[in-house]
Amino acid sequence: MKTYISLSGFDASQIVSLIVKYGIEGGDRIVLIRPEEERDSRGELTVQAVRDLSRQIDSRIDLQIHRVDHRDFEGMVVSLKDLLEGSEGQVFANLSGGPREIFLAFTIACLSHPLKIFRATNFSDIERCLNEIELPNIAAVLEEKQKRILNDVLESQPTTISEIARRLGISESTVSRQVARLADLKALEISPTGKTKEIRITLTGKILL
Amino acid sequence: MKTYISLSGFDASQIVSLIVKYGIEGGDRIVLIRPEEERDSRGELTVQAVRDLSRQIDSRIDLQIHRVDHRDFEGMVVSLKDLLEGSEGQVFANLSGGPREIFLAFTIACLSHPLKIFRATNFSDIERCLNEIELPNIAAVLEEKQKRILNDVLESQPTTISEIARRLGISESTVSRQVARLADLKALEISPTGKTKEIRITLTGKILL
Repeated sequence: MKTYISLSGFDASQIVSLIVKYGIEGGDRIVLIRPEEERDSRGELTVQAVRDLSRQIDSRIDLQIHRVDHRDFEGMVVSLKDLLEGSEGQVFANLSGGPREIFLAFTIACLSHPLKIFRATNFSDIERCLNEIELPNIAAVLEEKQKRILNDVLESQPTTISEIARRLGISESTVSRQVARLADLKALEISPTGKTKEIRITLTGKILL
Repeated sequence: MKTYISLSGFDASQIVSLIVKYGIEGGDRIVLIRPEEERDSRGELTVQAVRDLSRQIDSRIDLQIHRVDHRDFEGMVVSLKDLLEGSEGQVFANLSGGPREIFLAFTIACLSHPLKIFRATNFSDIERCLNEIELPNIAAVLEEKQKRILNDVLESQPTTISEIARRLGISESTVSRQVARLADLKALEISPTGKTKEIRITLTGKILL
């Protein structure tokens, strides 16, 4: 089973190139990323063209539109990271076209989870053709203990070292050491308020999870 | 001292917005990223408009054009990573406009070296305004020993474990262990040829260096 996740601008042929390059059949999935508000009718027309094509090929192809709020950069990155993580089968990530703020957010999501991606492609704006590209594997990989702490902070922020230790049943000294490391990685933010330190998760922390 | 590194398409106002937002003076530097071949005269006109403006402000502003080969994705990423690494002062990275294959390569270079960047910006294609964005800090950080090995492979590839050990004066068992780790990170590629293994550096290895 294939999942195509593609940015989508005003040019349906970029998505058609992608599908034709790798093939598609009933049961496969196409996800087009679009802004929440469609201010320009060309965006809707492109989605409609892809929908018509996929129905002609096989009505069992599942076409979904994944909407993101283009004014909320952090929200876009997290939403697209969740989309990638929740995708099944061979995931094809098409980094082509569409508004550049969404392009940027999707690129960050893909680079954070390169192992989730089976193939990455880019449609050259200059040559007008689709190329397979090698997405480098630059993302840091966190230890399980670090992920547990990040998850806990995400659910209960702002929080403190002693609260994390209590909830997870780990010693305060261990939590303190790991929190310091995660702050070095810019995955957590520590702000001193009075005697205790308030801990919050950052965008880095959310996408390294 | 400020260094503005900016993608550059057909819209000089995106770069003007950037300079106006943070200010510029004599001694500062602007680097515009453009493809090697200028097939569309609008690209040259945009460069000329930025040049004229910078001369009007202060003739001691240093404007450079950094050319990349848009057909060589790996080459672009490495070239833009080198550009970032060699930049001095406060580095402003403007992820806006231009052909998307270059946009993608520059984004990867920036995400690989987030600590090199003082501020990152994106010009919204939808709202038509410049926003400061938070680039997450997702890049893995290699140990010094791992960097020495990567550098050695880069200079002498294809190479072998015993050759690396001899050149660096480290034991073969240490090199072997580190090479295996670097291969897990996809920073090195190991291909067995006969009795010995040939080792090469990957794009991931080059940009994590």
